[in-house]
Amino acid sequence: MSSAATKMTSRTSEKTAAETFGASHVFESSSPLDLDSGSSLFPFRIAYNTYGRLNQDRSNAILVCHALTMDQHVANPNPVTGKPGWWQSLIGPGKTIDTNKFFVICSNVVGGCMGSTGPADINPETGRPYALSFPVITIGDMVRAQAMLLDHLEIPDLFCVLGGSMGGMMVLQWCVAYKDRVFSALPIATGARHSAQNIAFHEVGRQAIMADQDWHGGAYQSHDTRPSKGLAVARMAAHITYLSEPALHTKFGRNLQDRDKVTFGFDADFQIESYLRHQGFTFVDRFDANSYLYITRAMDYFDLSADYSGQLANAFKDSKTRFCVVSFTSDWLFPTPESRRIVKALNAVAADVSFVEIESDKGHDAFLLEEPELFATVGGFIHSAAEARGLGQVTP
Amino acid sequence: MSSAATKMTSRTSEKTAAETFGASHVFESSSPLDLDSGSSLFPFRIAYNTYGRLNQDRSNAILVCHALTMDQHVANPNPVTGKPGWWQSLIGPGKTIDTNKFFVICSNVVGGCMGSTGPADINPETGRPYALSFPVITIGDMVRAQAMLLDHLEIPDLFCVLGGSMGGMMVLQWCVAYKDRVFSALPIATGARHSAQNIAFHEVGRQAIMADQDWHGGAYQSHDTRPSKGLAVARMAAHITYLSEPALHTKFGRNLQDRDKVTFGFDADFQIESYLRHQGFTFVDRFDANSYLYITRAMDYFDLSADYSGQLANAFKDSKTRFCVVSFTSDWLFPTPESRRIVKALNAVAADVSFVEIESDKGHDAFLLEEPELFATVGGFIHSAAEARGLGQVTP
Repeated sequence: MSSAATKMTSRTSEKTAAETFGASHVFESSSPLDLDSGSSLFPFRIAYNTYGRLNQDRSNAILVCHALTMDQHVANPNPVTGKPGWWQSLIGPGKTIDTNKFFVICSNVVGGCMGSTGPADINPETGRPYALSFPVITIGDMVRAQAMLLDHLEIPDLFCVLGGSMGGMMVLQWCVAYKDRVFSALPIATGARHSAQNIAFHEVGRQAIMADQDWHGGAYQSHDTRPSKGLAVARMAAHITYLSEPALHTKFGRNLQDRDKVTFGFDADFQIESYLRHQGFTFVDRFDANSYLYITRAMDYFDLSADYSGQLANAFKDSKTRFCVVSFTSDWLFPTPESRRIVKALNAVAADVSFVEIESDKGHDAFLLEEPELFATVGGFIHSAAEARGLGQVTP
Repeated sequence: MSSAATKMTSRTSEKTAAETFGASHVFESSSPLDLDSGSSLFPFRIAYNTYGRLNQDRSNAILVCHALTMDQHVANPNPVTGKPGWWQSLIGPGKTIDTNKFFVICSNVVGGCMGSTGPADINPETGRPYALSFPVITIGDMVRAQAMLLDHLEIPDLFCVLGGSMGGMMVLQWCVAYKDRVFSALPIATGARHSAQNIAFHEVGRQAIMADQDWHGGAYQSHDTRPSKGLAVARMAAHITYLSEPALHTKFGRNLQDRDKVTFGFDADFQIESYLRHQGFTFVDRFDANSYLYITRAMDYFDLSADYSGQLANAFKDSKTRFCVVSFTSDWLFPTPESRRIVKALNAVAADVSFVEIESDKGHDAFLLEEPELFATVGGFIHSAAEARGLGQVTP
């Protein structure tokens, strides 16, 4: 929740960033965030974590973009859940993304609920929580806020920007909106647009939240309630899309939960039911329902080709970025054809792109798991890009 | 709703059955329905429609089993929605299933809400609606009730039993529980068990209903409310699984609904959102929320191999039934491997089985649509089975 975010001056936060691992900072912007909707957001702040040290050339920065329900705690234990950072196995000292060598930044998206300005914050115009008076934001807005953060950190360009799912959308947006500021990019398990089926699943989740009587038209904070049941249902529906059918079959099948036979009732007889309920009910403790509405909406609106008459290739024209596009065979939320579409567009403008489809039965969630082939792909790509940028001998 | 069901004596209904097309009848059983849970249901009634005439040998009866949210109005306009019967294009005079030749029966499942006894009915023990005091029923129970209906109609065996989705489960159950009463069987777009992913989607739907404050622990009738929002969300989630991703892409893509650009809000900007909302909100007018809980639960519990130590083939041992198993390439709710599993089991016991996988981009819903290849398959199979049964020259 935003109220829990550490407040500090920009100067302090910048200094700390260079000196500690996994330090939490807050960037309070002195200028408004211009939004794609035509409105703007001010004041606004971005909560972010940093790992490792920025080198003297300021050329070793890696920006990690998080997925829908993730946050800035990418490589340190999450202070809310106590669980390891969501890519802690990938990023850290001596790890695939080596924080002894690179300066890693991960920021909570604007609209989120882990410290960056979002709908749960106070609307300065009314003195009450924004709720639905928060402006609808886009992936473009999220990335624009990140660019302002980088300006503040005086980082002219990124050695690499990477992320999966919505994070991958942000990676692509970076490569289009800030062509000259991205040396290399790793969009993983993502797409250049949100598909009709994905919009459909998001809409189900939003309707579940809005159907909850405790939602109160978004103003649940003022009513001292939370639409927990609706948010749990939204999470359950979404969670199914993160797993593959084979993974569900292997992991749960029709196994019963702590019983020998079905109870002929509506308890969670099956392990899959118990698992989903758990996913739903734990989610509501760490996520804000209105943020869920806003962030899903941002994903729905994402269509990188929209400003280019539907010609995705034109979005990437003159790109100098080195791309590595990654998909997973059993991912049905962002299936391989969505990645191929990106690769095809990049190839059409002779961009520097490699493509890896990783064999996995773990579905969309594979990008968050310890998939050796993913780690090898990311490691190989980063290593080669670092050499190309002359970072090989850098001792940060 | 049950209260709307026509009440008539068994004798009258039987007589009418033989004489009219699409007549609605009610079978009031004089004995209880023994349930798989160990309890029993009494009194109980089954609402059913008939089409065509039973021949003198009583050998031309076709039983059609309906899917989760369908009903007995298979080949006549639905009295609730005013829409054509759900297989009216397939079944009727001179159609693929020719009611000039066959006597077609379609009954509402027990637990349903279109005239057969279900949770919305009065529990004779309390004088109040059953709600959650209604016993949990299974596919086996639904079929046992149908067998009692056939006994009442004095139909010793069925020329054919067919159905899609849950209807296909019932077809398979018939072929196992009443081996000698089924001459031919057409299980379409179905499986011999409900998969973990399918249980998961059902659980999301049930949780959405139960999360609705108007559900009142199932006792919404006593509170004069209906959990319409929760039921609509359940329907929306389920509806996504009935369509294929390619069909959604082709039909809706990212097209906007009655607008040139997105509104930066939570209205139904996209056609797919508008379509889903419509599906949800029209569904609640024709379906009972508790029936939805009970029928989804029956599907979850379905595993034909459970009584045979997990050996599906053993369930079909000594079967004399002629089978035609049908699947659709883009059906991801009951994908082709589920049908292959049935075919493999039938082959293992040397049953008479043919298998057709139909190329279609319409997903699970294909079985309800005018798919020429489906009609040709059904027509060819029925024709050949009729010849084998000596029904070729029958003039009913």
